[in-house]
Amino acid sequence: MKRVRLGVLGMGRQGQIHSKNIAYRIPEAELVCVSDITMERAELVGIDGVARYDDYRKLLSEQQLDGVVIATSTDTHEEVIRAAADAGVHIFCEKPIATTLAAIDEVLAYAEKKGVKFMVGFNRRFDPTFSGVKKLVDDGIVGKPMIINITSRDPQPPHLEYLKVCGGIFFDTTVHDFDMARFLSGEEIYEVYAAGSVLVDERIGELGDLDTTMVTLKFESGAVGSINNSRRTGYSYDQRVEVFGTQSCAFGNNETPTRVEYTNPQGHHSDVPLYFNIERYPEAFYGEIQAFVDCLYHDTPPPVTGSDGRKAVVLSMAAKKSWQENRPVRISEIGPV
Amino acid sequence: MKRVRLGVLGMGRQGQIHSKNIAYRIPEAELVCVSDITMERAELVGIDGVARYDDYRKLLSEQQLDGVVIATSTDTHEEVIRAAADAGVHIFCEKPIATTLAAIDEVLAYAEKKGVKFMVGFNRRFDPTFSGVKKLVDDGIVGKPMIINITSRDPQPPHLEYLKVCGGIFFDTTVHDFDMARFLSGEEIYEVYAAGSVLVDERIGELGDLDTTMVTLKFESGAVGSINNSRRTGYSYDQRVEVFGTQSCAFGNNETPTRVEYTNPQGHHSDVPLYFNIERYPEAFYGEIQAFVDCLYHDTPPPVTGSDGRKAVVLSMAAKKSWQENRPVRISEIGPV
Amino acid sequence: MKRVRLGVLGMGRQGQIHSKNIAYRIPEAELVCVSDITMERAELVGIDGVARYDDYRKLLSEQQLDGVVIATSTDTHEEVIRAAADAGVHIFCEKPIATTLAAIDEVLAYAEKKGVKFMVGFNRRFDPTFSGVKKLVDDGIVGKPMIINITSRDPQPPHLEYLKVCGGIFFDTTVHDFDMARFLSGEEIYEVYAAGSVLVDERIGELGDLDTTMVTLKFESGAVGSINNSRRTGYSYDQRVEVFGTQSCAFGNNETPTRVEYTNPQGHHSDVPLYFNIERYPEAFYGEIQAFVDCLYHDTPPPVTGSDGRKAVVLSMAAKKSWQENRPVRISEIGPV
Amino acid sequence: MKRVRLGVLGMGRQGQIHSKNIAYRIPEAELVCVSDITMERAELVGIDGVARYDDYRKLLSEQQLDGVVIATSTDTHEEVIRAAADAGVHIFCEKPIATTLAAIDEVLAYAEKKGVKFMVGFNRRFDPTFSGVKKLVDDGIVGKPMIINITSRDPQPPHLEYLKVCGGIFFDTTVHDFDMARFLSGEEIYEVYAAGSVLVDERIGELGDLDTTMVTLKFESGAVGSINNSRRTGYSYDQRVEVFGTQSCAFGNNETPTRVEYTNPQGHHSDVPLYFNIERYPEAFYGEIQAFVDCLYHDTPPPVTGSDGRKAVVLSMAAKKSWQENRPVRISEIGPV
Repeated sequence: MKRVRLGVLGMGRQGQIHSKNIAYRIPEAELVCVSDITMERAELVGIDGVARYDDYRKLLSEQQLDGVVIATSTDTHEEVIRAAADAGVHIFCEKPIATTLAAIDEVLAYAEKKGVKFMVGFNRRFDPTFSGVKKLVDDGIVGKPMIINITSRDPQPPHLEYLKVCGGIFFDTTVHDFDMARFLSGEEIYEVYAAGSVLVDERIGELGDLDTTMVTLKFESGAVGSINNSRRTGYSYDQRVEVFGTQSCAFGNNETPTRVEYTNPQGHHSDVPLYFNIERYPEAFYGEIQAFVDCLYHDTPPPVTGSDGRKAVVLSMAAKKSWQENRPVRISEIGPV
Repeated sequence: MKRVRLGVLGMGRQGQIHSKNIAYRIPEAELVCVSDITMERAELVGIDGVARYDDYRKLLSEQQLDGVVIATSTDTHEEVIRAAADAGVHIFCEKPIATTLAAIDEVLAYAEKKGVKFMVGFNRRFDPTFSGVKKLVDDGIVGKPMIINITSRDPQPPHLEYLKVCGGIFFDTTVHDFDMARFLSGEEIYEVYAAGSVLVDERIGELGDLDTTMVTLKFESGAVGSINNSRRTGYSYDQRVEVFGTQSCAFGNNETPTRVEYTNPQGHHSDVPLYFNIERYPEAFYGEIQAFVDCLYHDTPPPVTGSDGRKAVVLSMAAKKSWQENRPVRISEIGPV
Repeated sequence: MKRVRLGVLGMGRQGQIHSKNIAYRIPEAELVCVSDITMERAELVGIDGVARYDDYRKLLSEQQLDGVVIATSTDTHEEVIRAAADAGVHIFCEKPIATTLAAIDEVLAYAEKKGVKFMVGFNRRFDPTFSGVKKLVDDGIVGKPMIINITSRDPQPPHLEYLKVCGGIFFDTTVHDFDMARFLSGEEIYEVYAAGSVLVDERIGELGDLDTTMVTLKFESGAVGSINNSRRTGYSYDQRVEVFGTQSCAFGNNETPTRVEYTNPQGHHSDVPLYFNIERYPEAFYGEIQAFVDCLYHDTPPPVTGSDGRKAVVLSMAAKKSWQENRPVRISEIGPV
Repeated sequence: MKRVRLGVLGMGRQGQIHSKNIAYRIPEAELVCVSDITMERAELVGIDGVARYDDYRKLLSEQQLDGVVIATSTDTHEEVIRAAADAGVHIFCEKPIATTLAAIDEVLAYAEKKGVKFMVGFNRRFDPTFSGVKKLVDDGIVGKPMIINITSRDPQPPHLEYLKVCGGIFFDTTVHDFDMARFLSGEEIYEVYAAGSVLVDERIGELGDLDTTMVTLKFESGAVGSINNSRRTGYSYDQRVEVFGTQSCAFGNNETPTRVEYTNPQGHHSDVPLYFNIERYPEAFYGEIQAFVDCLYHDTPPPVTGSDGRKAVVLSMAAKKSWQENRPVRISEIGPV
């Protein structure tokens, strides 16, 4: 079969990772071209034989592509998605799809109308540990989920500049965990209750944001869940999940750089978890692009859809409202789901 | 110094455990006498040289005791506490102190008026693992607590007859975890939000009770927490705590019967946790009585007070109300704290 | 059935442990009497209603016992065993049975002639972790053992005075591991090769002894094994076994005081193993006496025989000879086995 | 600085891995060309812009290289090394350097005479876990090593055809562990004693080989060690090291594919270790080539020398002799070291 011809739009950190994975690790795909807003940044791809553009529109018109990976800044997603859909190429889009629910609904409808596939980059679904937990659920080892606990904490807060534009902790951090909760349980959340505080950095509070949160989840089956987030552990990325079901309790624990341990009079010591998402999720970044390629190569539906991307945003909106009004919020309050 | 003379009232399972610990493991104490409502049950003490009574009042009047351990049925606590206070003996009382907040307030005031010490049996504070986590907090290793997660699940639900009279899962199970949350954090909870379902046994739902719960905790410092409970794991007692603080994240994990492990083609396997409270908490049962003896022997205040017992009940009340009304409930709503 | 009447001879640390276990934890047995060479030491039993003697011969003649636990100093074992056998009481004897192979052979023959049961105190066989590994072997989970590795290291060396009389590391330390190797494998060792050094304390070398050793084991089935010993870890007692078989690899790992763990920027930390044999083997000390009582109560053969005690000594002799002559030594060289 | 120009000779599994690492993961190097004995196999490199040869001599004469990676069959190493040395290119050579000690000595002398660097492919030194243990030794965390235990077991035996030509278990398997023992301890072994059996497959015994071995190591400092090998675990690659020193005991444990765990009534379960060397050592394969590139790029000595390769072979010879004659063998018996 013919290799899938791909372009990567946006040569930030994530775009570079995707480019390397396409070029070096996915035999069914070919990295044809990349773009960024300047040619200097487009050159960051650093791979021979790949066309560079400083205008994604030119890229779309000149190259015959099967699909694009959209890794441009979030505020450009809407126009880039439309342009790609117009060009008839399939779309892999980093989350969030867009900054408002209305915009998300519009671009998803537009892509659907144009008949292009649309996949959202919830990479953690492709992490070997988390997908391994999901497999235990799917294989019936866990039984019916009853309690789901998700821990998701960053080593250090991002820069204040980023914090100002990221939409707040529920949209920037918890959004991943909402998707994970839906993914692991295989069902929908109908109500959330969010609590939170500013314990890490007062300036985060001054932005009207939180840095320490606890969200209660209610699933349609009656299962309950919790998501706890922090902007700062001090040690490293703390990313764990637990699915307690009728047959067993499954855990997805932290990965460590090595399996070195030692015992001395002060205790038994082992590694801290991997530092941050770049260190923890290389296989997940690879896996999501492989999955996108697979769905183009075999013409199958994408494993993470625009609807999944939309639902995680709706849950984040409900969490924010819950915290603002200090009451449980039904997801249906936010809008049709 | 003279050994502390103790009597144990109630020869149920807990009373027998306390009797053995006093007689065999606490050199500073002497098990002088026991009572139960029949002489047959009083004989269950099974230790030579210990006087048996089928009437605790007779025991209190005939024996010169320093303290009593009250392990009678909860509905008798009120009158037994009063009688012991009248006899001027110090009191160790199993939780709950009494069945209503009013009754608790009255007997605590009565004991105080009579000048007897009053200690409540929150045994888990004396578990080596949980007290070890507390020590990490106290020693500053954890830093300021920011997130506290408590998992507390039983291997199997109790008999239906017990479920009918136990007051519901918040009073019977979560009450211990509320105390643990206060113990570990060293601070007070000002608001709770409780969610729950019936996923284990429909008959529990028919009693108006829950078997699967998730309670959000808000601490005065801004720290947040969660308690998740289940009436049935199928495997064993699942009792874990996590305190995430500004300096580290501390864990109190499950104990196992052995340290046997093996690897075969199906996986790497180790023990399930210890089966239930009798297996998991022998050192905690011993430790709490040792602590009671210590506070009589050295005339120091009890480490777990009547007020601690009361507060855990108030938190359980708030959790129940929260679940019934599906809203966060301030502890101050329940009454003065 | 009638309770088993027992006396404990020798009120050193081990005799006191046995006395408490008999008196408090074994309902089928009764601690009737104890002896030591002075009445002051006999009083160390500290349990009401137990007769004290400063002469074990008087104890044997005055009391009607079913069995005795011999915990006197090793140099007295020979005469005490004979006296107990003459009195027709069954014998539990701390290891080593005696200080020479000839003496061991004689007293074992004597006890057999007198028709009394003889059990040797290889307590580690009754440790829940090691007996759990043995169970995996017996249940076929491990398959046929192919490689057995035993780690056995003390936290600190004993006093020099003790080192002078203990017979050397092979007789004092490795002897337990030889028994463990026989116990776990269920088969005999036919050849050993011993290497060793003085790395902990030069004074140990001046005594002609070693403090760091590695012994290769050859089992009759073709399985191979290793025992490594050290007189000093600095941290705590390091007692681990590994049985690698055709079906799986089984591990008996160290026990820790708690299950507390914490993660901070310096690493993930947990407890050091329990400090020494008193901390690590309380259940094993209890279990071996329970087993002795069981074999009297139910009139069954002892689970650890005089022959087991003898074989471990023969293996220690072979190890010493191997090290002295720097060559593999057949067990049959030492004498008939 | 100019990128290091490299050629890879031999496009078997290992040659392909090296080619990919050079081409995709090492920015300081350039994969210029590859060769194999047929053009079809040379094409397996599968990377655009890399020259293919079916004759390594032609490759050496036509291309201006800085270094070559020799991954051809062992019986060709001798001539390939000489040709590369003649061409004045630095050499990375897979182990074993050659099949006889004489040949090893000759080619090492030849390479030295020609002034080219020579590095041997003991990849495990570059495994993050084992190099992490080494770092604990180098940093003084372990203290002076006293006992070193190495476990090294394959999931399944290789094909019989391979077993016939591999030189036996000591040369094919233990050779890696001898290097690891030297690497971790930082010192030389002066004597070995080897025991072994045929427990996995009788046909291995018919070849005069062993499939289950235990080798005792004596280090110059007095430290002792053991290496245990098996041709078959049934589960996966079992690769662990332990360095017990005066300050702590360090462990390099197995890696697993994920960090998934689950508890059910049958036990607590986690992953088996990674299956075999391809799965376990990708970072080590990468690391060793990175190290080779570094020593060309910065003109520094190679971290694993021809002398290291030679010493591991001498130790394997001593082990074989020890087993054949059932006696400890001094390394100096084999020849000058």
